Amino acid sequence: MTNSSSITGNDTPLIIDGKTYQSRLLVGTGKYKDLDETRDAIAASGAEIVTVAVRRTNIGQNADEPNLLDVISPDNYTILPNTAGCYTAKDAVRTCRLARELLGGHDLVKLEVLGDQKTLYPDITETLVAAEELIKDGFKVMVYTTDDPIIAKRLEDMGCVAVMPLGAPIGSGLGIRNPYNIRMIIENANVPILVDAGVGTASDATVAMELGCDGVLMNTAIAAAQDPVLMARAMKGAVECGRDAFLAGRMPRKLYASASSPIDGTFF
Amino acid sequence: MTNSSSITGNDTPLIIDGKTYQSRLLVGTGKYKDLDETRDAIAASGAEIVTVAVRRTNIGQNADEPNLLDVISPDNYTILPNTAGCYTAKDAVRTCRLARELLGGHDLVKLEVLGDQKTLYPDITETLVAAEELIKDGFKVMVYTTDDPIIAKRLEDMGCVAVMPLGAPIGSGLGIRNPYNIRMIIENANVPILVDAGVGTASDATVAMELGCDGVLMNTAIAAAQDPVLMARAMKGAVECGRDAFLAGRMPRKLYASASSPIDGTFF
Amino acid sequence: MTNSSSITGNDTPLIIDGKTYQSRLLVGTGKYKDLDETRDAIAASGAEIVTVAVRRTNIGQNADEPNLLDVISPDNYTILPNTAGCYTAKDAVRTCRLARELLGGHDLVKLEVLGDQKTLYPDITETLVAAEELIKDGFKVMVYTTDDPIIAKRLEDMGCVAVMPLGAPIGSGLGIRNPYNIRMIIENANVPILVDAGVGTASDATVAMELGCDGVLMNTAIAAAQDPVLMARAMKGAVECGRDAFLAGRMPRKLYASASSPIDGTFF
Amino acid sequence: MTNSSSITGNDTPLIIDGKTYQSRLLVGTGKYKDLDETRDAIAASGAEIVTVAVRRTNIGQNADEPNLLDVISPDNYTILPNTAGCYTAKDAVRTCRLARELLGGHDLVKLEVLGDQKTLYPDITETLVAAEELIKDGFKVMVYTTDDPIIAKRLEDMGCVAVMPLGAPIGSGLGIRNPYNIRMIIENANVPILVDAGVGTASDATVAMELGCDGVLMNTAIAAAQDPVLMARAMKGAVECGRDAFLAGRMPRKLYASASSPIDGTFF
Repeated sequence: MTNSSSITGNDTPLIIDGKTYQSRLLVGTGKYKDLDETRDAIAASGAEIVTVAVRRTNIGQNADEPNLLDVISPDNYTILPNTAGCYTAKDAVRTCRLARELLGGHDLVKLEVLGDQKTLYPDITETLVAAEELIKDGFKVMVYTTDDPIIAKRLEDMGCVAVMPLGAPIGSGLGIRNPYNIRMIIENANVPILVDAGVGTASDATVAMELGCDGVLMNTAIAAAQDPVLMARAMKGAVECGRDAFLAGRMPRKLYASASSPIDGTFF
Repeated sequence: MTNSSSITGNDTPLIIDGKTYQSRLLVGTGKYKDLDETRDAIAASGAEIVTVAVRRTNIGQNADEPNLLDVISPDNYTILPNTAGCYTAKDAVRTCRLARELLGGHDLVKLEVLGDQKTLYPDITETLVAAEELIKDGFKVMVYTTDDPIIAKRLEDMGCVAVMPLGAPIGSGLGIRNPYNIRMIIENANVPILVDAGVGTASDATVAMELGCDGVLMNTAIAAAQDPVLMARAMKGAVECGRDAFLAGRMPRKLYASASSPIDGTFF
Repeated sequence: MTNSSSITGNDTPLIIDGKTYQSRLLVGTGKYKDLDETRDAIAASGAEIVTVAVRRTNIGQNADEPNLLDVISPDNYTILPNTAGCYTAKDAVRTCRLARELLGGHDLVKLEVLGDQKTLYPDITETLVAAEELIKDGFKVMVYTTDDPIIAKRLEDMGCVAVMPLGAPIGSGLGIRNPYNIRMIIENANVPILVDAGVGTASDATVAMELGCDGVLMNTAIAAAQDPVLMARAMKGAVECGRDAFLAGRMPRKLYASASSPIDGTFF
Repeated sequence: MTNSSSITGNDTPLIIDGKTYQSRLLVGTGKYKDLDETRDAIAASGAEIVTVAVRRTNIGQNADEPNLLDVISPDNYTILPNTAGCYTAKDAVRTCRLARELLGGHDLVKLEVLGDQKTLYPDITETLVAAEELIKDGFKVMVYTTDDPIIAKRLEDMGCVAVMPLGAPIGSGLGIRNPYNIRMIIENANVPILVDAGVGTASDATVAMELGCDGVLMNTAIAAAQDPVLMARAMKGAVECGRDAFLAGRMPRKLYASASSPIDGTFF
């Protein structure tokens, strides 16, 4: 069965900063009810990269309290410290340096600089400043940003190792609000593009992957589901099947099967 | 890990006409380039029910030609004869009887009566007539229909064993055009509801399952993909993860995380 | 200015049952707070055809009570009696006959037969029966139906003078849920097609007209707005500008201006 | 008729830089087949503010060639010079200064700095630099930007007299791709918010106004329609009815009329 072999053989793995990953789903650690649920959900997600909000999570800062790394071990996962809760470039840079220290020189970080506490929308100006400083300082920066294709390209040109546009505001669950922009970003990119934020349910992750994203990062969609562990499994499947569908090449949309041409932008 | 056990344990299987299925993806056999591709794609889909267009496929009518059942064996699959190509109740009933004869008394059928050759949209009037006659004649009828909730309920009340509303016209690949109607049908139903027709890519199948459908039937989305076998695998995953996400209970949509209430129908 | 003259000159008026109308907006009379608001909103809408639920509105049945026709006079408006609240063909036919009697032989009616009280979705089977009987009995039938293109064509073939598919359930305000079906109905039609039910705000009416509808009928969207009279004026404009836009022929959609071809159904 | 008076009385006019406008539709002058069509379309649009691409249009730079201002007279319209075709802050500032000189000290400008020639997407970084310099230099800046709510607020805080987020890329005709972001921008704004770019047909403009925008600016949707003058009239109506609908306060969306609560973000 020649085709069967083609199924498993024809995708290249996700490579970030020179390291290869089988999973294209990245997950956060916030909002779970306890560390057991955190561990079980992350296991079910199949994620290999786990992002940790340094300012909210104990990864060694407080020696006497439970340490997340006891549950999500750096031996098993690539720990991706992030700057959630930072509203200035300065704070974000300082947070990354703290993380590097706590994690023994680890230099892969997820940069996010937010514009306000109400919407948690990215602050692009500060993000650009922070990215530049971090890169100069030797960090490998995966950068959270808006779905602005010009800014996405600039972050890539600056040397970010992955660009992570939002699908929708953090914690909104609105899905990919502007697939057109995500598609424009992907068409122009030479580094991995991962949708970060906005996923609310499995089909949102599938849509992101069908657009050609290299991966998806999420937290609330799993942690705030009624059954987080089951949703984690759903998301694992959603990312995998979306990737498969992208590679398989979908049929074109038509008004009906006998229509002589696909949907052409006139009525729809 | 208590949650992990809940993952695999909490779904009830799909039951149609008293028989239990692990897979919620049903597939057709048309439009493949050859029987090898048909076999490989169906294997990759994980489908246990395979629908066959009796008027277009040799399942024994022509003793001297290749028989689909040699590739898709009734030992391995539940064969679901369908009435594709029938435009009247009379033709559809006759086709089902032929199928029963060819398949040694097999009485599970998929009824479809189409309204015209251009759109392949169902003819509800003729469908109701055919369903009644087939049920009287002892058939177990899975019925293809529009997304009209009143008609869906009538077909259930009449005794159909499953109701299969379209997501969009056959072969259109437009996805679930009216999820509101599909949801209304599901809310009122006591038999399995399966979306049949309209799926174009994996996320369409995921969306159908997230709405609470019991399963999805498709053909063109797999067979007309550039890589049908890979798309078949995508669809297997898409149905599974959509089911998981439905059971897991998604987070509510909000304009942003700190919004005090979900999207409420005023602006969005 | 040659073009300016073309603006006002190039549309043909709406003709229903041989009578010409300048307005393509039809309105109902239910759910207003009082008769003054009813009158003012209808005036602001510019509607020339006003539909009246015979089973809920006094148009002469109760000689001692306020009569709607004192406010909405048949001298100024085409009164369109409708069968709202009828759940069987028999009830609908009886209601039309009562209306004809009350209105002095008036034979233009809007037929609606509903499937249940919860969703107010049309019952197509009963609608077909009632339409046939009413046409035999000399009525001119404008018929409320689902967005099923096969049924729409059958109602036209039967002799209905206008076919009125829903945009969404009565009173839902969801807008045109399935523009693809509405477009299919229009492409096949030789009688006026009017979207009836589902409009929630002005843009919904504009979208209906841009799809090529001949008119739009609504009630709740106006009567349940916070300012019904202002919303009535909005709807007048929405129908007019949607008609203009349809006739003007929109630009094609593209991913961006320099894209060599329109959106083609692959990614979007 | 008390309500009728409320119709015309309850909106405040659009005020930009202290000047009052009755029309909320702003139009460009590009892409028309000749100056007659330009003049007729603009007249039909009812626009009072007309934007002119200084680098592409003769408004006096070339004394021997036809001057747009002979057709679109500053006596009748507020001329809004724009910096279309500028890809750096420096170019944009220089272009505004040239315009001010040509227009006798006129200081109201529309700033746009684009990121690349392929997508015509705004370059936010350069836009911020140019806006700051122009404001220091005494210009009144209406600024074209992305739909990023943080940047929109920053441009307002800087002193721009109006903020003009895109609905979709210039010349795409895709409509309001992310109404959620537009709504967030409006909720936070104290200066007029006008959607600029992306409108493809009348309903797009209506949707923009229903979201609460103060106005809409467009060019291609009119100029590239098959009948630009008729489309101009459509757009006039579309903006007016969208404004009316916003002020009138729409009914909430429900799955069907008897549903006890509006759409709540769970399934839809």
